[in-house]
Amino acid sequence: MNPQKLPHLVIVGAGFGGLKAAQKLAKLPVRITLIDRQNYHLFQPLLYQIAIAGLVPSQIAYPVRTIFRRQKNLTFQMGEVSAIDFDARYVKMDGSVIAYDYLILAVGGQTNFFGMQALEHNAFQLKNVESAVATRNHLLEIFEQASREADESKRRALLTFVVVGGGPTGVETAGALAELITHVMVKDYPHMDLKEVRVLLLEAGPYVMPSYPDGLRKSTFNLLRKKNVEIMLNAKLTDYNGEQVTLSNGMRIQTRTLIWTAGVRAAELADQLRVGQAASSRVVTEPTLQLPNHPEVFVIGDAAYFVNGNGEPLPMLATVAQQQADAAVRNLKKILKGEKPEAFHYKDPGLLATIGRNAAVARIWGLSFSGFIAWVIWVALHIYRLIGFRNRLVVLINWAWDYLFYETQVRLITKE
Amino acid sequence: MNPQKLPHLVIVGAGFGGLKAAQKLAKLPVRITLIDRQNYHLFQPLLYQIAIAGLVPSQIAYPVRTIFRRQKNLTFQMGEVSAIDFDARYVKMDGSVIAYDYLILAVGGQTNFFGMQALEHNAFQLKNVESAVATRNHLLEIFEQASREADESKRRALLTFVVVGGGPTGVETAGALAELITHVMVKDYPHMDLKEVRVLLLEAGPYVMPSYPDGLRKSTFNLLRKKNVEIMLNAKLTDYNGEQVTLSNGMRIQTRTLIWTAGVRAAELADQLRVGQAASSRVVTEPTLQLPNHPEVFVIGDAAYFVNGNGEPLPMLATVAQQQADAAVRNLKKILKGEKPEAFHYKDPGLLATIGRNAAVARIWGLSFSGFIAWVIWVALHIYRLIGFRNRLVVLINWAWDYLFYETQVRLITKE
Repeated sequence: MNPQKLPHLVIVGAGFGGLKAAQKLAKLPVRITLIDRQNYHLFQPLLYQIAIAGLVPSQIAYPVRTIFRRQKNLTFQMGEVSAIDFDARYVKMDGSVIAYDYLILAVGGQTNFFGMQALEHNAFQLKNVESAVATRNHLLEIFEQASREADESKRRALLTFVVVGGGPTGVETAGALAELITHVMVKDYPHMDLKEVRVLLLEAGPYVMPSYPDGLRKSTFNLLRKKNVEIMLNAKLTDYNGEQVTLSNGMRIQTRTLIWTAGVRAAELADQLRVGQAASSRVVTEPTLQLPNHPEVFVIGDAAYFVNGNGEPLPMLATVAQQQADAAVRNLKKILKGEKPEAFHYKDPGLLATIGRNAAVARIWGLSFSGFIAWVIWVALHIYRLIGFRNRLVVLINWAWDYLFYETQVRLITKE
Repeated sequence: MNPQKLPHLVIVGAGFGGLKAAQKLAKLPVRITLIDRQNYHLFQPLLYQIAIAGLVPSQIAYPVRTIFRRQKNLTFQMGEVSAIDFDARYVKMDGSVIAYDYLILAVGGQTNFFGMQALEHNAFQLKNVESAVATRNHLLEIFEQASREADESKRRALLTFVVVGGGPTGVETAGALAELITHVMVKDYPHMDLKEVRVLLLEAGPYVMPSYPDGLRKSTFNLLRKKNVEIMLNAKLTDYNGEQVTLSNGMRIQTRTLIWTAGVRAAELADQLRVGQAASSRVVTEPTLQLPNHPEVFVIGDAAYFVNGNGEPLPMLATVAQQQADAAVRNLKKILKGEKPEAFHYKDPGLLATIGRNAAVARIWGLSFSGFIAWVIWVALHIYRLIGFRNRLVVLINWAWDYLFYETQVRLITKE
């Protein structure tokens, strides 16, 4: 059969969802064009490790072309999709047009600043390689500045680090940052009094880890406290001007570093599509993950608004995106065979978050773990999931080293 | 003894020279302030490996504070020195002033574009982490562009890579780039005809590796040819506008990529010092490495103009900087004891350059080597010299992997 006559499937996004869908389609009689604005797949759950100088980007990013070298039915295009014409069935990318028969939209998410422009301008975020590297450079630069600042109140403002958001990313970042300071920076800056350092974790609600069972919320709270993270609950940020955080209760905190992990939304492209959007700008899908009135289009992952059995939208997690990728591929196969697509059902595989060097919390296989056992599970699972054997090996060496010597490798301040 | 009463030595620059001097002074009764505009020491001879996506910055850069953790008599300051008052004996850094009793200037070198502004604006260079990463991003981006370029002449211009300078850096870059293309890119871009790719090495003089013995020049030439590098000798560049190289013989080459390795000069700071400068803007020193009329100031490394026994100035090499650091420290000790400083003599330890994955040329221990044996020497020596055991281990794993699988790890296009 002439490959040009095969149906053309375009996948937008090479994150967890897009990548999985493309891989699952390896043996199907379709031509696939995979598009991403980066030339690599990023293991986002470890981005915070880049920010705290624990890993370098190449350890958690892997070139898309290399992943798909052996998949003959796939072509990769690096580029930014600016618009999609669902009626004429084509995607606009960097001035050129790519027609499709089927489309999987897996465009992912981005940070949500909820319209607070000063915050957006002054906060650091952990959504891509560049923002994580910028955060690392800033954190290290701040220590250099503090080391030569003679004025105590200015120095204390420099050495106050605020992480906003009590979900897994905020908890992991605050815990890892506290450890970087108490175990590594203390050696690099022997002349500084690191008692002046504060790591604050701000959460607008009454708990850290709100999506976790109560026992693990408490474990998280205690583990963070043990690492000298100051936790402020019911602390709702209203403004950050780059030097001062203002909370809704009027409290002010002087800081030059605010890492915002308290909001995610669908990628901006979702706003350009003229389709139905729900909370967090996510695209509303049919139970089959198809776009309403466009059965040839599937929407999966962070960008998809899909209501679960309990009436809540599914969270923006890699496992959701991957399960939806599986389901979209199954439904695409059915359509190609002339069968009816089926509704998607999410199976919760558990929750897992790390809090620094040797502690984590996990709910997995119906059980709750915290502390060192949860950390071992976390390390094993994350290393296993990283694409590429060498990456796994290098990450493993780094972590073993860190664990033995309380050391991190990449405290380089690079220019942006 | 009150440490504040000890003589204060300021070292400007944490490159090979400054680092070595600081380490040699660990046990001397002096207070040392080491200043660098980066917070890391960089193993410059491997910068080209970053440009061709073979290594990542953290494998060849190491935080200065970590290197000197155990050296009690040293303080590190990250900052840019803008001026020095030799009469009043202070250094100006980022608005503050640092007084010294003794000074070691080890400010290093930078790329010399010989006043060709269009070239400077459009060329890529390999002098620091940022420029090497920019080169890597550009090379990978060019392949993405070429993969979607339908016009053959435009595609050929994209796929023409010009390296200028037949010295070790140019030879190493051209050889490694040719291998990246023939062994790695060919797998990542299966739809592209990589016969359209050209890697050109331009040298203004009649030989590649002019400072090497004739036999090794010939070996280099042949090794490069075997890797499909086109060598153009007596090819003097007069202009590069970003799209077209013009040579003095009127020849034009269409290319979007020119990597300039054909000129080095002392760092710009040398021009601000109002001291005697010679060829390549280097600061003229006494035979003892002291600054004329300022016996308390030593100038070493790339920034120092020092004429060897044969009447030629010493080349800008790590080994020269390190030997001069040794000599400057010896002379400083003599001065502190009230003795007379001695003239510096350079001992040539040999020459060594690699040409891609498994070939190199070396003149060492009075012998000439080329091919695989030289490559093994090169790998062993470079890994040994890299600071930090983990760095050595990770670099070793990377290279072993590359060697076995013709693979490089870091083909990530990151935004600048």
